[in-house]
Amino acid sequence: MNHDKNVTATVGHLIDGKIVHDGGRTQPVFNPATGQSTVSVELASKATVEAAIASGEKAFPAWRNTPPLKRARIMGQLKVLLEQNADKIAAMITAEHGKVLADAHGELQRGIENVEFASYAPELLKGEHSRNVGPNIDSWSEFQALGVTAGITPFNFPAMVPLWMWPMAVACGNTFVLKPSERDPTSALFIAQLAQEAGLPPGVLNVVNGDKEAVDTLLHDPRVKAVSFVGSTPIAEYIYGEGCKSGKRVQALGGAKNHAVVMPDADISNAVTAMMGAAYGSCGERCMAVPLVVAVGDEVADQMIAGLSAEIAKMKVGPGTDNSNDMGPLITKPHFEKVKAYVDSGVEEGAKLLIDGRSLQVAGHEDGYFLGPCLFDNVRPGMKIYQEEIFGPVLGIVRVKTLQEAMDLINAHEYGNGTCIFTRDGEAARYFSDHILVGMVGINVPLPVPVAYHSFGGWKRSLFGDLHAYGPDAVRFYTKRKTITQRWPSAGVRDGAVFSFPSSR
Amino acid sequence: MNHDKNVTATVGHLIDGKIVHDGGRTQPVFNPATGQSTVSVELASKATVEAAIASGEKAFPAWRNTPPLKRARIMGQLKVLLEQNADKIAAMITAEHGKVLADAHGELQRGIENVEFASYAPELLKGEHSRNVGPNIDSWSEFQALGVTAGITPFNFPAMVPLWMWPMAVACGNTFVLKPSERDPTSALFIAQLAQEAGLPPGVLNVVNGDKEAVDTLLHDPRVKAVSFVGSTPIAEYIYGEGCKSGKRVQALGGAKNHAVVMPDADISNAVTAMMGAAYGSCGERCMAVPLVVAVGDEVADQMIAGLSAEIAKMKVGPGTDNSNDMGPLITKPHFEKVKAYVDSGVEEGAKLLIDGRSLQVAGHEDGYFLGPCLFDNVRPGMKIYQEEIFGPVLGIVRVKTLQEAMDLINAHEYGNGTCIFTRDGEAARYFSDHILVGMVGINVPLPVPVAYHSFGGWKRSLFGDLHAYGPDAVRFYTKRKTITQRWPSAGVRDGAVFSFPSSR
Amino acid sequence: MNHDKNVTATVGHLIDGKIVHDGGRTQPVFNPATGQSTVSVELASKATVEAAIASGEKAFPAWRNTPPLKRARIMGQLKVLLEQNADKIAAMITAEHGKVLADAHGELQRGIENVEFASYAPELLKGEHSRNVGPNIDSWSEFQALGVTAGITPFNFPAMVPLWMWPMAVACGNTFVLKPSERDPTSALFIAQLAQEAGLPPGVLNVVNGDKEAVDTLLHDPRVKAVSFVGSTPIAEYIYGEGCKSGKRVQALGGAKNHAVVMPDADISNAVTAMMGAAYGSCGERCMAVPLVVAVGDEVADQMIAGLSAEIAKMKVGPGTDNSNDMGPLITKPHFEKVKAYVDSGVEEGAKLLIDGRSLQVAGHEDGYFLGPCLFDNVRPGMKIYQEEIFGPVLGIVRVKTLQEAMDLINAHEYGNGTCIFTRDGEAARYFSDHILVGMVGINVPLPVPVAYHSFGGWKRSLFGDLHAYGPDAVRFYTKRKTITQRWPSAGVRDGAVFSFPSSR
Amino acid sequence: MNHDKNVTATVGHLIDGKIVHDGGRTQPVFNPATGQSTVSVELASKATVEAAIASGEKAFPAWRNTPPLKRARIMGQLKVLLEQNADKIAAMITAEHGKVLADAHGELQRGIENVEFASYAPELLKGEHSRNVGPNIDSWSEFQALGVTAGITPFNFPAMVPLWMWPMAVACGNTFVLKPSERDPTSALFIAQLAQEAGLPPGVLNVVNGDKEAVDTLLHDPRVKAVSFVGSTPIAEYIYGEGCKSGKRVQALGGAKNHAVVMPDADISNAVTAMMGAAYGSCGERCMAVPLVVAVGDEVADQMIAGLSAEIAKMKVGPGTDNSNDMGPLITKPHFEKVKAYVDSGVEEGAKLLIDGRSLQVAGHEDGYFLGPCLFDNVRPGMKIYQEEIFGPVLGIVRVKTLQEAMDLINAHEYGNGTCIFTRDGEAARYFSDHILVGMVGINVPLPVPVAYHSFGGWKRSLFGDLHAYGPDAVRFYTKRKTITQRWPSAGVRDGAVFSFPSSR
Repeated sequence: MNHDKNVTATVGHLIDGKIVHDGGRTQPVFNPATGQSTVSVELASKATVEAAIASGEKAFPAWRNTPPLKRARIMGQLKVLLEQNADKIAAMITAEHGKVLADAHGELQRGIENVEFASYAPELLKGEHSRNVGPNIDSWSEFQALGVTAGITPFNFPAMVPLWMWPMAVACGNTFVLKPSERDPTSALFIAQLAQEAGLPPGVLNVVNGDKEAVDTLLHDPRVKAVSFVGSTPIAEYIYGEGCKSGKRVQALGGAKNHAVVMPDADISNAVTAMMGAAYGSCGERCMAVPLVVAVGDEVADQMIAGLSAEIAKMKVGPGTDNSNDMGPLITKPHFEKVKAYVDSGVEEGAKLLIDGRSLQVAGHEDGYFLGPCLFDNVRPGMKIYQEEIFGPVLGIVRVKTLQEAMDLINAHEYGNGTCIFTRDGEAARYFSDHILVGMVGINVPLPVPVAYHSFGGWKRSLFGDLHAYGPDAVRFYTKRKTITQRWPSAGVRDGAVFSFPSSR
Repeated sequence: MNHDKNVTATVGHLIDGKIVHDGGRTQPVFNPATGQSTVSVELASKATVEAAIASGEKAFPAWRNTPPLKRARIMGQLKVLLEQNADKIAAMITAEHGKVLADAHGELQRGIENVEFASYAPELLKGEHSRNVGPNIDSWSEFQALGVTAGITPFNFPAMVPLWMWPMAVACGNTFVLKPSERDPTSALFIAQLAQEAGLPPGVLNVVNGDKEAVDTLLHDPRVKAVSFVGSTPIAEYIYGEGCKSGKRVQALGGAKNHAVVMPDADISNAVTAMMGAAYGSCGERCMAVPLVVAVGDEVADQMIAGLSAEIAKMKVGPGTDNSNDMGPLITKPHFEKVKAYVDSGVEEGAKLLIDGRSLQVAGHEDGYFLGPCLFDNVRPGMKIYQEEIFGPVLGIVRVKTLQEAMDLINAHEYGNGTCIFTRDGEAARYFSDHILVGMVGINVPLPVPVAYHSFGGWKRSLFGDLHAYGPDAVRFYTKRKTITQRWPSAGVRDGAVFSFPSSR
Repeated sequence: MNHDKNVTATVGHLIDGKIVHDGGRTQPVFNPATGQSTVSVELASKATVEAAIASGEKAFPAWRNTPPLKRARIMGQLKVLLEQNADKIAAMITAEHGKVLADAHGELQRGIENVEFASYAPELLKGEHSRNVGPNIDSWSEFQALGVTAGITPFNFPAMVPLWMWPMAVACGNTFVLKPSERDPTSALFIAQLAQEAGLPPGVLNVVNGDKEAVDTLLHDPRVKAVSFVGSTPIAEYIYGEGCKSGKRVQALGGAKNHAVVMPDADISNAVTAMMGAAYGSCGERCMAVPLVVAVGDEVADQMIAGLSAEIAKMKVGPGTDNSNDMGPLITKPHFEKVKAYVDSGVEEGAKLLIDGRSLQVAGHEDGYFLGPCLFDNVRPGMKIYQEEIFGPVLGIVRVKTLQEAMDLINAHEYGNGTCIFTRDGEAARYFSDHILVGMVGINVPLPVPVAYHSFGGWKRSLFGDLHAYGPDAVRFYTKRKTITQRWPSAGVRDGAVFSFPSSR
Repeated sequence: MNHDKNVTATVGHLIDGKIVHDGGRTQPVFNPATGQSTVSVELASKATVEAAIASGEKAFPAWRNTPPLKRARIMGQLKVLLEQNADKIAAMITAEHGKVLADAHGELQRGIENVEFASYAPELLKGEHSRNVGPNIDSWSEFQALGVTAGITPFNFPAMVPLWMWPMAVACGNTFVLKPSERDPTSALFIAQLAQEAGLPPGVLNVVNGDKEAVDTLLHDPRVKAVSFVGSTPIAEYIYGEGCKSGKRVQALGGAKNHAVVMPDADISNAVTAMMGAAYGSCGERCMAVPLVVAVGDEVADQMIAGLSAEIAKMKVGPGTDNSNDMGPLITKPHFEKVKAYVDSGVEEGAKLLIDGRSLQVAGHEDGYFLGPCLFDNVRPGMKIYQEEIFGPVLGIVRVKTLQEAMDLINAHEYGNGTCIFTRDGEAARYFSDHILVGMVGINVPLPVPVAYHSFGGWKRSLFGDLHAYGPDAVRFYTKRKTITQRWPSAGVRDGAVFSFPSSR
C-alpha cells in the first residue's frame, strides 16, 4: 500500500517496546527542501492505537510502583543519550521539517531541558504533610500517577513538543501514548527508542503515528486518563471539548498571533535584531513567532522598517542542511500556497508590502517549498493578515500612537499566547506585563518561551484547560491528588496491657 | 406568580450589591421537618443571570488591582461576622435543609475554615522567581485572576459548599456568580450579604437563584471563565462537558459511594461509633457519607452489626431544631420516596434488612420527610443499593474474606470519592492508602474530609477536571499563570554616556 | 527602691499569665517630649528571668500538642483586639518613645501584619512528604517546635519588633520569653496581655523587663533554645557569639547605614518626598532609615539639595501627641547628646552643614529631647557621619560620578541592611539589585521593609545568622526539622494468616 | 619532611585548579587493614589555606553570575564521571578507611545522590514573587550566593560527607574550600579533580588537607562566609562557637548515640537483620549507627539476643578489599585501643558481655586494626558504654518495660541524631515519631538517613545551628535572602509626553 516506488523506509509505531508495522494505511513524508518523499509513515488503525493503550495499561502498575528516583534517573540517562545523538536527531528534523540544522539543534536542546526537568521528579512530586490537623490526626497529600496518558503533537517542533509532555508524564509514574505529527514523525520515534535504551521499560512509552482515526481513538478510549495537545486553535478546541466530554483531563494549546510592542525609548537596533529571529526564524512556523510589530509612534515605525529592511536584504534562504542559510522551506506545498495567499490578501486589503518574498527561487531546489521573507507596513486590525495566524515568514508593522493603544489591540485579539515589549523604562514594562492579557510576556525578550523549570501556556483562545505545559504545571497535570487523613486508635501495643498478647500468638 | 398564599418571603438575587427581584418564575422552598413552605425562591431568567455576570465583569478591573492583602483582610472580617451570626445561619440551614442544628453549626464551621484559608491569599498567590535563567535574563510567574467565575452548589451543604468556592475565587482577584441550590437558598444569600458588610465591593460576589436556565446561562456565557460545580455525577458530567466545550476551565464534583473497610484488628467499638455518624449523620445526605461497611471476616461483620444495632436502637429522629435529635428529615418528599424505594429494592435483591426505618412516624411532624435509619446485611456488588448513591440513612454491610478483596471491590466501583480503613496495623493502612483508587482516604477516620488547607476531591467518576476543590488546588484553579521573561538592554542610564542626556531634556 | 516620688506606675513582668513585681531594681522611663518620668520599669533579676523560662518550659508540652489551626486562630483573635486597642497602644508608644502618633499607628499596623502572617500557620507548617523513597518506604519532614524561645527587642519600635518575633514563634508551637527595651516597655507588655485575652494560655508568652542581667540569663540558660535579637551591631555580635557558644540557634539583627542612590533619570520630586520620610521619619531612629543620599552627578545632588531644603523648611517638630508635627523628640537625653556630637564631628571633618537643627527649641517642651533636622552636603567615606549609624535626623549627601561608584561605596560599607535606587531605567535597577551587597533593596521605594509575608534581614554586619526575621524564614527559625522514614513489615494483618489471632484476644 | 621511606605518594591540595604541594608538614595515612602507610598527606599551613580562600574569592564573581542551569549541568556531568569512576573511588576509600568495598560503593552512591540533588538547582533556587504588595508595588526574594564557603569533614565517610556539602554550595553559586579528614584524604581530592573535569572552573572548589591550623584559618578568615562541619560533638561545639563568634553562619553536626526500640509486636527476625547492619556495618563508625537496642519486655530482649547471637556467629571480619567480609578494621590504632577500652569499661560497670570480639585475629593481617563484634546485655543509663559514642562494633541491649520508658531514656540522652522503632502498630509508631526528641526517626527502618532530597540533621547536641545538612535546608544554608521591593514612577515613557524626547537624543 506504499504510495511511491521511491519509498525506502516506512515509519511504524512503537508498541510495548517493539517497532510495529500494522500494514494499514500510509502517507508520504516529504522533504520540504526538495519536495521529494523517500519515506512514508503508517497511519495507525483504531486497533493499533488500542494495542498501544493496552500496552500502557499493562505497564502501569509496575511503573507507578517504581520509586520516583529510579524513574528520574532514566531521564538523566536519556539526557546523556540525546546529547550523544544530537547531530543525528537534528538531521532527522531538518530532513522532514526543513528548518536549518542550527535551529534543529536549538529545538532539541530545549527538549533536552524538559528531560532535565523531569529528572528532578523526586523533588517535584513531594506532597504536603500536616501533623495534628486535629488532636493526634495527621493529613497529607500525595500526587499519584493517573494511568495511561496521551499526547498529540504538531509538525513545527517534531522533537521538542513531544519532550514537553511524555518525560514529565512518565517521571510522574504514568505510561504514555504519543501521536506525533505525521508530517515529520521520525525524530520522535527515534527519541522514544533512545528512552528505552536509557532504561524505560516496554509499554511505558508507546508511539503511534496516524491521523484523525488515531486521535479520536485516544480521545474516546476510557483507559486514557489525560490528553495533552499542541496544534491549531480549531483542533485544540475540538480536542478539549471531546476529551472533556469523555471525562478526561485535557490541556490543549492552540494558535497565536504574537505582537511585539516597540516603544520610543527602545534600543532600536536591538529590537531589529530580535525581531529578525522572532519573525523569520524557522520560517515563522512557531507558536511563539512574532509576526506583528506594534510601533509606538511613526518615528519608531520608520526606524524599525529601515533596520528590518537592511537585515532582510542580507538574509539567505535555502535548504536547512546548509547552516549558512538563515531560513529553510515551509513544511508542505499546501502550506506554502496558504501563506502565499495570505500575502496576496494583505496586499488586497491595503497593507503596504515593502518586501515581497513570493517570487523567491532557490537554485537547485526549485521543487522545495521556499518562500522569501515578506514585510508589510500599515497592517491594521480587521485585515486577515492581522487577525489570523499565518505560520510563515511574514512580518507586519502596525502603527499606533501610545502604549495603551498597543495594549488595547493585543487585549482585543482572539489569541493570547506570547507578546513582548521593547523599552528601557521600568514603569512601561511593569504596566504592560501586569495588564496584558497574554500568558507569556517578554520584556526586551522577543520569544519569551519560559525555561523548562517554569511552564508554557497562553491565555484566551491560545490554551484550553487550566494547567500549562511542562514545568511545575505539568507535574500537577500528570498527577492526581490523594489526601490521606490518619488517626490511630489509642489503646494499642504501646500500653502495658499489650504484654499479655505476645504470649498468645 | 407565587405558588402559595402562605408564602411570607421570596428569596431573590444579589446583583451589583443589591437584592434584586426580577418578578419571574418562582418555586416554593419547603421545610422538610414540616412539609410546609412559607418561603419561595425566584428562578432567575437568562437576563437576570446575564445582569449578574455583567456586574462581575464591571467590578473586575478594580478588584483584580486591589492588593491581595486587602482582599484577604475582607475574608478575615467575614470570618468574624460569620462567627457572630452563626446561630442565625444555622437556623436558616435547619429550616430549609432539615439537618440538626448542631450539624448545621458544624457545616458552617467547616465553611468558615475555607474563609480563613482564603485570608492567607498573600502567601498563597506567591509566584516563582528565577534570577539569571540566562545571562542577565530573569523570569518569574504570576498567578493572575481569571475574571468572572461561577459556582453551582448542591442542597446538602447550603452554606459550606458555596464557601468552598467563592472566598478563594475572590481572594484571588476574581469576581463570582454563585447559583446556590434552589431547595435551600437562604443561608448562601445571607452570607453573601455579610461579605458585603465585611467590605466586599458590589459586583464582586453576585448570587442568582435558579434552575437549569440559570445554569446553562453560566455555562455558555463567554464572559464566565471558570465554573465550579458540586452535585450528582450525571449533572457533573454535563457541566464538565458543556463548560469545556464553551472553552472554560471547569471542575465538577459528582457522586460517591464510600466504603469503610473494617479489619480484624480494628478497635471495633471505635469503628461502630465512627460509622454511626458517617452513615446516618445529616441523614446520609453527604458526598462523604459512608453507606457501606466492608467487613473483613464474618467475625468482624457480626461484631459490627451487633454494635451498630445497639447504637441505632438509641437514635432519636425528629426535627433538626431540637438538638437532642440525632437525625432530621430528608430534603424533599420526592427524595424521601426515592430513598424508600432503594430500601425496597435492597430487600428484593436479597440483601438482609436488619433494621427497617421505613415506617417511622415522628409525632407532631407527620408531614415531615422522616425516614428512620436502615441497616442491611449481605449487601453485594451488583445490587442497586451497592452500586448507586442513595443519599439517605441506609447502611449496608458487605462481607469479604481479605483486605485485597475489599480493595478490589472499591477499585472496581464507579465512584472514588472517599474511603476509610479501620485497623491498628501500619502496613495494612499504608498498602490501602497507596493502592486504593480513591481521592480521600481515612485511616481510622470515617469521613476523611481534608482540612481547609488541603484540597477536596475524588477520583474516577466522582470528579471531572484536574484540580480539586478548595485549599491549594483552588488557588491554581482560580488563577491563570503568567510567565514573564525580562532582559534589559545594556546601554542605559548606568553608563557614563548618560550624562549627556539630562541636560537635553 | 523607686527612683522618684513622681512615679505613678511601675512596669513589671508577665510570668505564667500574671503580672509580677519582683521588688528588685528599677529604672525610670522618661517621656522624651517632656524629659519627665512618671513611670519606672523593673529590671528582672536572674531568678525572675528563670521563673519566666520555667513557666515557658511548663506550658510547652500542652501548647506544642495544640493543633496549629487552634494556635493560629488565637493570632486571628489577637489581630481583632489589636485593632480595637490601636489608639491606646499608639498613645503608649508616643508617651515613651516620642514618635508622632500617626507614626506609632503605622508601627502598630506593621506589627499587626505579622500577627496576620502568624495566623497562616497551618499552611506555613506543612512538611514535605515523599511516597516511595525506596520500594514501599516513605519519608516526610515535620517542622516541630523548639521549646522555650526568647526575643530581645530595641526601643525604636517598641510594639512592632516584638510582634516580628513571638507571634510566629508561638504559632509554631513554641513558648516565648520576651525582653522588650527598658526605655519604652509598656506597649509590649500590654500587647502580651491582649494575647492572653485572645486565648493564649498562661506561660506561652512571658515578658520580662530588664537589662544585661536579664539578657545574659536568656543567653546562657540551657532551656532557652533560640534567641532572636534586634539592636545595635556590637550587641548583636555579642548576642550571636554568646548564644551560639551556648549551643543555641541565634538570629541577631544589628545596625545599618542605608544609602539611597539617585540617578540622573530619576523623578527628582518623587525622590525628595521619599527621602524626607526616609531620613527624618521617627527622627531617623529606624534601622531602615536612610541617612545618606548618593547623588550620581552634581546636577542631581544640587537638585536634591534644593528640593530637600525646601521641604525641611516646612517641617514641624514637636511632641508626638500632636499629629500635625512631622517629627518628635529623640529617645533619651544621652542619645540626644550623641547625635548632636555626630553633627559636630561632621562639621569638623569637613562636610558642609547646610541645615543645622542643633539649636532647635520647642516652646513649652524645653526639657524634651528635640533636635531639628540636619542636612549635610559633601559627606565622604571615612567621615564618622558616613561610617557610623547615627540614629538621628541627620541626612548627608554624597556626590559620585557613576552608578558603579555609588555601588562600590555601598558594597564597601560595613553594613548591608537596606538600600534603594531612584531611577526610571529597568537596566540600572536590575544591575543594582543583582550586584548590591545589601539584604533589602528598594527600587524607587525608600524604605524597602519587606511585607510580613516576606522576610526582613540585612547582609554583612547588619545580621548575624542565616535566617531572616519574620515571614517564611521565621517559620524555619522557630522550628526544627524532623525527618521520618517509614517501612512496614510485610507480613501483617493484611494476610490471611491474620484470621487466627482475633480469636485469641 | 616525609615521615617514612616507604612513602610512595604525598597527597597535596587542590588550589585554583592545580594540585599544590606546599612542602610543609606531612602526616602518614595508614591502611587500617595492614597497619602500613605508603601514603602521606600534607598538612596545610595558614598561608596555604589562605591561598585556597583567595582562589575562591577570585573565582566567585564569575561563578555567581553563571546561570544556575549551567552550574547545575556541571553537577549532572560530575554524576556521570562518578559513576564511571566508582570502582576506583571505592578502592581509595577501602584502602584508607578500611570499610568493605561494597560498603564503600554504598557510600559513594549516597554521595552521588547529593550531586544529583544539586543538579536540581534551577528549581531549588526559585524565589517568591508577589505582585501588588501595595498598589503597583511588587516584591520578591532571591536566594543569592554567599561567597567563599567551607566544609570540614570526618574520616568515616571520606567521599560522601564532602558530597553532602560542596555540590550544593557551588550549585548555589558559592565557591568552596574543603578540608577533608587527614586520615583518608585521597578520595575527596580525586572527586574534586573529577569535578573540574566535569567543567567546574578553577577556584570554585579548592581542597586543603590539614589539621587544626587549617581548621582555625577557615574559622577565622573573614572571607569565609559559612562553615559546614561534620565530626564529633566537642569539635562541633568548638566550630560552632568559634565560627559564630567570627560572625559566620555555621552548621556543625556532632556525635550520636542512636537507640533502636523493639516493641513486643515487632517482626523480630526483621529487627535482628536490620540491627546487624545498623550496629556492625562499617564497624559502627557511622553517626547513624545503632549501638543500642532498647527491648520492650524481657521476652523481646531474649529473642533479640538469640537472633543477634546467631547472626554474629556467622559474621566474617577481614580486609575490606574482600567483599565476602562483613566488616573491616577500625580506622586507626588509637581508635582501636579506645573502642577496646570501652568494652573493658562495660564489663567493669556491670553490663553482661555476651559476645567478646576483643581477641579477634585476622590471619595475614595481624597488624590491622581489627576488632570482632561485641554484644552486651543489661546495658544501663549511666554506664560509659551507654552514655558515650563508641564508634565501634559494640552493640548493647537495654531492657525496659514500656515504650514510654524507652522514650524517656532516649529523650534524656545528650544526643538526638537518629532513632528507630520496630513495631507493626500504627499508633505506637506515630506516638514515637511525634514525641521523640530526635531529628531522624525510622519506623522499621534502622538507619533513617534521609534521602538526598530531604535533609540530614539531629537534635540536641548532635547538631549546632538551625539548618540541616544537604537537601532543601542546604539550599537555604548556602544562600542569603535578598528581598527587593519595586515601584516605578508613574510619569514615564508610557505617557504621551514622551514623544517629545526621542527627537532630542
